[in-house]
Amino acid sequence: MTWTVYLSGEIHTDWREQIEQGAANAGLPVAFTAPVTHHAASDDCGVAILGAEDDKFWHDHKGAQMNAIRTRTLIEKADVVVVRFGDKYKQWNAAFDAGYASALGKPLVVMHQDEHAHALKEVDAAALAVTKTPQQVVAILDYVINGHLPGYTDRAQAAQ
Amino acid sequence: MTWTVYLSGEIHTDWREQIEQGAANAGLPVAFTAPVTHHAASDDCGVAILGAEDDKFWHDHKGAQMNAIRTRTLIEKADVVVVRFGDKYKQWNAAFDAGYASALGKPLVVMHQDEHAHALKEVDAAALAVTKTPQQVVAILDYVINGHLPGYTDRAQAAQ
Amino acid sequence: MTWTVYLSGEIHTDWREQIEQGAANAGLPVAFTAPVTHHAASDDCGVAILGAEDDKFWHDHKGAQMNAIRTRTLIEKADVVVVRFGDKYKQWNAAFDAGYASALGKPLVVMHQDEHAHALKEVDAAALAVTKTPQQVVAILDYVINGHLPGYTDRAQAAQ
Amino acid sequence: MTWTVYLSGEIHTDWREQIEQGAANAGLPVAFTAPVTHHAASDDCGVAILGAEDDKFWHDHKGAQMNAIRTRTLIEKADVVVVRFGDKYKQWNAAFDAGYASALGKPLVVMHQDEHAHALKEVDAAALAVTKTPQQVVAILDYVINGHLPGYTDRAQAAQ
Amino acid sequence: MTWTVYLSGEIHTDWREQIEQGAANAGLPVAFTAPVTHHAASDDCGVAILGAEDDKFWHDHKGAQMNAIRTRTLIEKADVVVVRFGDKYKQWNAAFDAGYASALGKPLVVMHQDEHAHALKEVDAAALAVTKTPQQVVAILDYVINGHLPGYTDRAQAAQ
Amino acid sequence: MTWTVYLSGEIHTDWREQIEQGAANAGLPVAFTAPVTHHAASDDCGVAILGAEDDKFWHDHKGAQMNAIRTRTLIEKADVVVVRFGDKYKQWNAAFDAGYASALGKPLVVMHQDEHAHALKEVDAAALAVTKTPQQVVAILDYVINGHLPGYTDRAQAAQ
Amino acid sequence: MTWTVYLSGEIHTDWREQIEQGAANAGLPVAFTAPVTHHAASDDCGVAILGAEDDKFWHDHKGAQMNAIRTRTLIEKADVVVVRFGDKYKQWNAAFDAGYASALGKPLVVMHQDEHAHALKEVDAAALAVTKTPQQVVAILDYVINGHLPGYTDRAQAAQ
Amino acid sequence: MTWTVYLSGEIHTDWREQIEQGAANAGLPVAFTAPVTHHAASDDCGVAILGAEDDKFWHDHKGAQMNAIRTRTLIEKADVVVVRFGDKYKQWNAAFDAGYASALGKPLVVMHQDEHAHALKEVDAAALAVTKTPQQVVAILDYVINGHLPGYTDRAQAAQ
Repeated sequence: MTWTVYLSGEIHTDWREQIEQGAANAGLPVAFTAPVTHHAASDDCGVAILGAEDDKFWHDHKGAQMNAIRTRTLIEKADVVVVRFGDKYKQWNAAFDAGYASALGKPLVVMHQDEHAHALKEVDAAALAVTKTPQQVVAILDYVINGHLPGYTDRAQAAQ
Repeated sequence: MTWTVYLSGEIHTDWREQIEQGAANAGLPVAFTAPVTHHAASDDCGVAILGAEDDKFWHDHKGAQMNAIRTRTLIEKADVVVVRFGDKYKQWNAAFDAGYASALGKPLVVMHQDEHAHALKEVDAAALAVTKTPQQVVAILDYVINGHLPGYTDRAQAAQ
Repeated sequence: MTWTVYLSGEIHTDWREQIEQGAANAGLPVAFTAPVTHHAASDDCGVAILGAEDDKFWHDHKGAQMNAIRTRTLIEKADVVVVRFGDKYKQWNAAFDAGYASALGKPLVVMHQDEHAHALKEVDAAALAVTKTPQQVVAILDYVINGHLPGYTDRAQAAQ
Repeated sequence: MTWTVYLSGEIHTDWREQIEQGAANAGLPVAFTAPVTHHAASDDCGVAILGAEDDKFWHDHKGAQMNAIRTRTLIEKADVVVVRFGDKYKQWNAAFDAGYASALGKPLVVMHQDEHAHALKEVDAAALAVTKTPQQVVAILDYVINGHLPGYTDRAQAAQ
Repeated sequence: MTWTVYLSGEIHTDWREQIEQGAANAGLPVAFTAPVTHHAASDDCGVAILGAEDDKFWHDHKGAQMNAIRTRTLIEKADVVVVRFGDKYKQWNAAFDAGYASALGKPLVVMHQDEHAHALKEVDAAALAVTKTPQQVVAILDYVINGHLPGYTDRAQAAQ
Repeated sequence: MTWTVYLSGEIHTDWREQIEQGAANAGLPVAFTAPVTHHAASDDCGVAILGAEDDKFWHDHKGAQMNAIRTRTLIEKADVVVVRFGDKYKQWNAAFDAGYASALGKPLVVMHQDEHAHALKEVDAAALAVTKTPQQVVAILDYVINGHLPGYTDRAQAAQ
Repeated sequence: MTWTVYLSGEIHTDWREQIEQGAANAGLPVAFTAPVTHHAASDDCGVAILGAEDDKFWHDHKGAQMNAIRTRTLIEKADVVVVRFGDKYKQWNAAFDAGYASALGKPLVVMHQDEHAHALKEVDAAALAVTKTPQQVVAILDYVINGHLPGYTDRAQAAQ
Repeated sequence: MTWTVYLSGEIHTDWREQIEQGAANAGLPVAFTAPVTHHAASDDCGVAILGAEDDKFWHDHKGAQMNAIRTRTLIEKADVVVVRFGDKYKQWNAAFDAGYASALGKPLVVMHQDEHAHALKEVDAAALAVTKTPQQVVAILDYVINGHLPGYTDRAQAAQ
């Protein structure tokens, strides 16, 4: 069985690449999905394809709805949803995705630093794991998929 | 039929009271629900009832999970979910609620000022109305429940 | 038990009033719901409440989304959905409602004249009754709720 | 991941072939599905297989129900539903499909020319994209699946 | 809380009246629902209201679909579904209702005599109780609603 | 796409083999599933594996519940459910399966001869096609999957 | 709004009465439901109503299935499910109820003493609150329903 | 078709290996899944990956929630859930899994010795088979998948 893991949230650092590389190194049977992470493209996709808008609100609206075709589909297909909150920006779409995934009953893993813990307490309360680093996410996937936990003699039975 | 409307989000201004007063003035058949809006109580409820925690993370966790008993129940019972984003704070729980409501298929009404429009474009894209004032929310409820729209001769048929 | 019946579709004749009057005359325990049937109000509600739009497309969009708060909520609450197709106009929203109700598993009653039967065959195929007159709809409700069928000695047991 | 895209609606022009050819040219991992587009066959399938009917209504009914075996199954399996409204005919089945897909939570893409925009405003309001050409549909699929947007340096991460 | 109990199946004896009378005597908070039990009316309702059919198959079809408006609605609203199989007839609609209720997760109570036990074994296997008499059904309702069991000192706590 | 078709009902003639052979001859991409059709084995499986019972009721119960592991799983995985009623026996399990499939929203095809039409009218009313022969079922599958209808020039577009 | 709270688990102490009394004292709008708590009656209900069994397994089976009519119905209707584990017995039915409620998405409150914490860690991990006393449960209900938290000036907004 | 079977419960004997070996010997098309069965790893996974906790309760909580990512995902993907109760320990998580699987409508097979039958009667009542040995589970799978029942001439039709 291949697990599908959706990586939602912050798009300005290489945390997705780190998780994907870590999972590849560990040979994990995981297919990663994500939103379009090209900031300008994700802002402009609606008007670029469907025609320009004078009003910035509708410019954004067309783009956000087009992105939703991708994000909602992939979240619904995911086995696990990981949501990362970075240092900057409002990142309301990350929290929106966390709520969306939670209502669908998807196991939720959150990633953020300690300084945001209080502000994210409702999101953390809906999560099954709260992490700080990509390495922890990889370790979780290695454990929940294969039963591998470093330092423990491995006789765990893993799903194929 | 009484409509149930959940008022999520910002808790530092009197926007809920304005909507409730406006709805009462208009005689709308609406029951409003909301999270606990007493900031300190909602932070401390977990430890106050279940026992203190040394670690702030678990202090928050117990409180946030206890609040979730209320918020998830009321969102699931709501006919319409209104989410307001204020001027300050991260308000990730508001965006989480919007995502949660959206995945449940609840009609979503968002309230915020123009300066947050770009950051909230994914949330707005999931909404059926984007408002700026409590008066607009009352007007929407009066229209969608009763078919009343000021300036239009009223011959609309309303649901009982 | 009170049955809730949503009356979707054509808004230029008094078919809803005829059904409601017929049901009242028969003393049926039915609460009728419907879209806002004031044509101009339903076109303009979005801009009237949320602000004008230069572009007619967004004018319509804001109105149609606002109407959806009402229509989707009421269709989901309905026990039976009746959709009438009249002589004129495209009436795509009526067919949309029929498809929406059908996917939700709502018992569907369709009303139209013979000349539209071929064009509506897919909609009719999803319906549990295809009618031509408001009187037939009232007769169906009287039968399915009370077990009354004129000319048949009434010993049917009706749900309360 | 292969995406499944259902192409509903108008059957008298080659818009499906244009989308399929465009997707093939772009190497998109998409499996397209559609209703039976042979007009006479889709009208007559019921009686041809199950036996003739004297009454045209039942002739149509048997055919429409048989077609529903295909259309409902394929819409439920689709990741994205595209509905095109052409210049002619009532096309109520297209609007029915749009409503059906919408109630199932399928991302909806609509295609029509400007002159139908007002009549289709409720359908458009339920869509995540409103297009005019097959090329736009292909561009949307290329963007939502691969993150490709012409003119934007491609560093987007796509789902496999 | 009032429990809703749907009484499906055989319509030629007074078993429904016996259950209803027994429940009334015991003061049980139960609302009973049922199909239309007037045999001729349930056969003819379709053509009586919607117009005659030459072909008996369509005569039956219109009636059966009209009855389905009632039966599916009431089964979906029921808390408990009781299905009785009598001595005579095929009673396939009773078994159909049992399967329908079972797929919806409704607690199923079956009533039949021993001679049909083998033929009904798949239906019985889906049931939570297999009874022979109306008195047993009343006793079950009295027990599951009120915790009353004759001969046992009553200190059970019942749901309100 | 491979379609999965569950063949429920009568087990004393070779109708399943005829459908499977016909589908194979036509090269249809269909995987057929069915209950265990060995009458004695399906009666005795429970006691054979789990231990004998003195009481015939529990003998049957253990077998019927064991068969339900197979039948409910396969019905839920099916794209289309075909239910055949033969000349003999009560066949309540066939009608139960039809109701079960119907409540799950599965497209239902029924097969029986004319003499049972009246007794099966509620089952037929829930079906999308009522057939008499295995050849008709094969023809339906060929049409709904491939758009093939003998005598009609084949330009239909089929799902892959 | 009245909240419905199901009290599952241990039946040998008066914890239910304490919660009910505490809720009554606080004037909480709560309707409590529970399994039948008369131990002998809940063991014997099946055979008492449906007839004796020689085999203890089937004696238990008939009783347990009859109790399931009540327990599954009431858990599905509950807004909140409280499960208490006492000092003695295996109490597997309590854990079963917790799993059942959890899969239905019901907010879960668990009650047990510290010595069982490790053995119950999977159950606790699915809960939104882990309590030790009936008083804590009452305090949680008072907080989540009314926003009351002793020691905090009460300006919380409660759902009606 | 490959069946997926989740093996929940007791982790101190080799019952899973026996079932897997038996299924392999019989050539059954089954993919088995299970929780992590390394006791120490499953206790410590949370703190090992996410950081140590002073309080044993939170140590357990982090581990149990991490295990839930695996167990809930695999139970939801399973076609059949087998739950074994051993001689020792409380095994509340096994009963929790049984309740969870039951509420999801998964066919449930239980394994335990006679001495626990009374205490497990509610769990058994939700099961479609109650077994004592791994060999019985293999025999059930061979029967429900392939229609094989030793001693019965094999002409059963199996799903592919």
